[in-house]
Amino acid sequence: MSMEKKIGEAGMVLGSQSIAFAKSPYILNAGSVVGNKEAEGPLGKLFDMTNEDDLFGADTWEEAESTMQKEACVLALGKAHKEAAEIRFVFGGDLLRQGIATSMGMEALQIPMFGLYGACSTSGEALALASMSVAAGYGDFMLVVTSSHFGSAEKEFRFPLGYANQRPLSAHWTVTGSGAFLVGTEKSHIRISGVTVGKIVDYGLKDSQNMGACMAPAACDTIVQNLRDFNRKVEDYDRIITGDLGYVGQDILFDLVKQKGYDIREKHMDCGMIIFDQKTQDTHAGGSGCGCAAVTLAAYILPKIKKGEWKRILFVPTGALMSTVSFNEGASVPGIAHGIVIEHC
Amino acid sequence: MSMEKKIGEAGMVLGSQSIAFAKSPYILNAGSVVGNKEAEGPLGKLFDMTNEDDLFGADTWEEAESTMQKEACVLALGKAHKEAAEIRFVFGGDLLRQGIATSMGMEALQIPMFGLYGACSTSGEALALASMSVAAGYGDFMLVVTSSHFGSAEKEFRFPLGYANQRPLSAHWTVTGSGAFLVGTEKSHIRISGVTVGKIVDYGLKDSQNMGACMAPAACDTIVQNLRDFNRKVEDYDRIITGDLGYVGQDILFDLVKQKGYDIREKHMDCGMIIFDQKTQDTHAGGSGCGCAAVTLAAYILPKIKKGEWKRILFVPTGALMSTVSFNEGASVPGIAHGIVIEHC
Repeated sequence: MSMEKKIGEAGMVLGSQSIAFAKSPYILNAGSVVGNKEAEGPLGKLFDMTNEDDLFGADTWEEAESTMQKEACVLALGKAHKEAAEIRFVFGGDLLRQGIATSMGMEALQIPMFGLYGACSTSGEALALASMSVAAGYGDFMLVVTSSHFGSAEKEFRFPLGYANQRPLSAHWTVTGSGAFLVGTEKSHIRISGVTVGKIVDYGLKDSQNMGACMAPAACDTIVQNLRDFNRKVEDYDRIITGDLGYVGQDILFDLVKQKGYDIREKHMDCGMIIFDQKTQDTHAGGSGCGCAAVTLAAYILPKIKKGEWKRILFVPTGALMSTVSFNEGASVPGIAHGIVIEHC
Repeated sequence: MSMEKKIGEAGMVLGSQSIAFAKSPYILNAGSVVGNKEAEGPLGKLFDMTNEDDLFGADTWEEAESTMQKEACVLALGKAHKEAAEIRFVFGGDLLRQGIATSMGMEALQIPMFGLYGACSTSGEALALASMSVAAGYGDFMLVVTSSHFGSAEKEFRFPLGYANQRPLSAHWTVTGSGAFLVGTEKSHIRISGVTVGKIVDYGLKDSQNMGACMAPAACDTIVQNLRDFNRKVEDYDRIITGDLGYVGQDILFDLVKQKGYDIREKHMDCGMIIFDQKTQDTHAGGSGCGCAAVTLAAYILPKIKKGEWKRILFVPTGALMSTVSFNEGASVPGIAHGIVIEHC
């Protein structure tokens, strides 16, 4: 909790978990690829690419997810008129065991790669590392990509789709989607001005079908830490946007943040709550997956920042750190959340 | 392949994949924790902590692996007289699905965390990101930790131990071990002078029981790229040390590197080949796992660099990017390798 400030070469180290960049990296462009259900949702018209059968021409859900990642990257690069060879490093990840969607998807691009795992917080983790690398001068352009797929995630964490099991109302619906972001030194109207790196927060919850409750404490921790480290009020942000807490997690987040002396009700938005229409799409607690926050950022949030409709937001993807093995062995589900400060410029 | 050089604030960007640090970060200390078989091996006496039943007081292999990670971190911190609260970020990973050993192991330390996945190359990935963060001024101390466990890895990738299946001679023996490293600005006799970040290299091999062959092309790619980017000859390194290619992978590496015009036979060493005694320990192709390279670096390699016995080495942990799902779906096993230049000072 030390609040001392120390100036590094690339930025200012704030408080115990944050960095403010001396020379902000920019988000030059983004690409979003989603499945059919997402295309039919409230944000459906905003995504760059959709696919009707969710297989994207592949034979398996895993390959379909890899294809989405590759396409999202190609879109982000193409829109910015950049080639893969111009990209210094790619920071990527997904929800599958051994990050296989990323390994398979990124091979074709032949960009030096850092594979990440932060569950559904991975887009935040990747944006933090990419912007840290750009601000430090390690390269002019970095690529960020994350994905999730309803078919591969159900198979990985719950039951294969053919089993047709029932899901509790607290369960999330994994978003089929991939978002990619080009982060670099070239000026755009969107800059990353700072990051707050999350700690693992474990309240001892063991219900993997209620991930909102598992992740809310981590979201609270990172949001409050960000406000303290940057010495800001809630009102200093136009929006505080969590990744996929959903309806259950949002209520818990409001309570937890209030206990710390902040009220974020007016400013909060959750990607998992806006990507689907809960009433007509039967998605229970809301969307989830590391594609959820990524495609919502790419297609819905960044355009608003670009236009200046929102001047400054705190983007906080949240992750539930569990595996089927840990869950079956009775371990709790800790959470992690990373905060990215994104501003219009 | 552009060889232009550009000076960043924290270092010099070299060639297409490398960074030379302007102000080198140091490895201040390291901790190593291993299981019983490793303790009985050729390096057995060098490790900081060993455990006879490989459970480290836990009830499951996964928890045992988490415990090893935590203990390795506590050792690395304790030896350097540092507290967890002084550490800015931890960069960690393991082989298990959703990196669960790291999530469970790191929670207690409450250090802001970046979860990584690079298969057995993860120690290289983590050292690269930690040293990049220190060199950029993002914090005075970073922690790096990786682990693997024979019991949890067999369960994850092959068969539970109780099944007692036979293994082909090309198969590796996953090292039960965790290595942790304290990277920072405080002067020591060991510095990280540069990194070469690996690309995914896929020769289309599909045999997950022959990981040496799957990883050798990636090791070759990173080693040759490092020599080119830094404009060095093989003789400029006292050792070029791969993570866990083993006996099968080493032969392939020698051939591949030779095709590129380099002969590394005199300088090459493989952690997987020295951690076990192949003749008496029945470990087939050699040790593997992201604990293998990490504990060998911590207990065997770094002391030699500290004493000045080796002046400069290239440490190249190698990873086979696969999951049981990708393997069963008939996908190939691509490899990745990251190069870390470590020097006596």
